[in-house]
Amino acid sequence: MKAKATFYHAGCPVCVEAEQNVAAALDPQRFEVEIVHLGNDKARVAEAESAGVKSVPALVIDGLPFHINFGADLSALK
Amino acid sequence: MKAKATFYHAGCPVCVEAEQNVAAALDPQRFEVEIVHLGNDKARVAEAESAGVKSVPALVIDGLPFHINFGADLSALK
Repeated sequence: MKAKATFYHAGCPVCVEAEQNVAAALDPQRFEVEIVHLGNDKARVAEAESAGVKSVPALVIDGLPFHINFGADLSALK
Repeated sequence: MKAKATFYHAGCPVCVEAEQNVAAALDPQRFEVEIVHLGNDKARVAEAESAGVKSVPALVIDGLPFHINFGADLSALK
C-alpha cells in the first residue's frame, strides 16, 4: 500500500515552486500525493492544522508536517 | 539523465526527520540524491550558500533551495 503525502498550499508563487519541484519529485511508486489548495478548500484548514501545519507550502508525509520555505501563515487562510 | 538533488543537514533531530521522510521520498528513477552533512563538511557551506540555502535542513533540487522546517541557521555552521 502506498503511503499518503498531502501537499497543502495557497496558490502563492512560493507554493507553486514547491509543488512543482518537491511534491512532484516524490516517488510515485511509494507515495500517493494529494494536492490541497487551502484557499479554495477552507474546510480542510483544520485538518492541516491538526497535522501540525503552521504555514504553506507544507507537505505532510506519514502524518509528519514539513514546512517548505514560507508562503503564508495558516492563520491568513481561515 | 537524472536530476541532481542535494540534501544539506547538520545532524540535528529536525534534519534527520527531514532526511528520512522527505529526501528519502524522492523518486530514485528521476533524482540522484546526495546527502551532505555541513557540520562534518564545512568546505561545502559556501556551495550551499551560493545555492540560496539559509538554514538546514534544506533540499536543493535543480538549483532551487527548499528549506524544510528549521534546524539551524547556516551561519551557525561556519
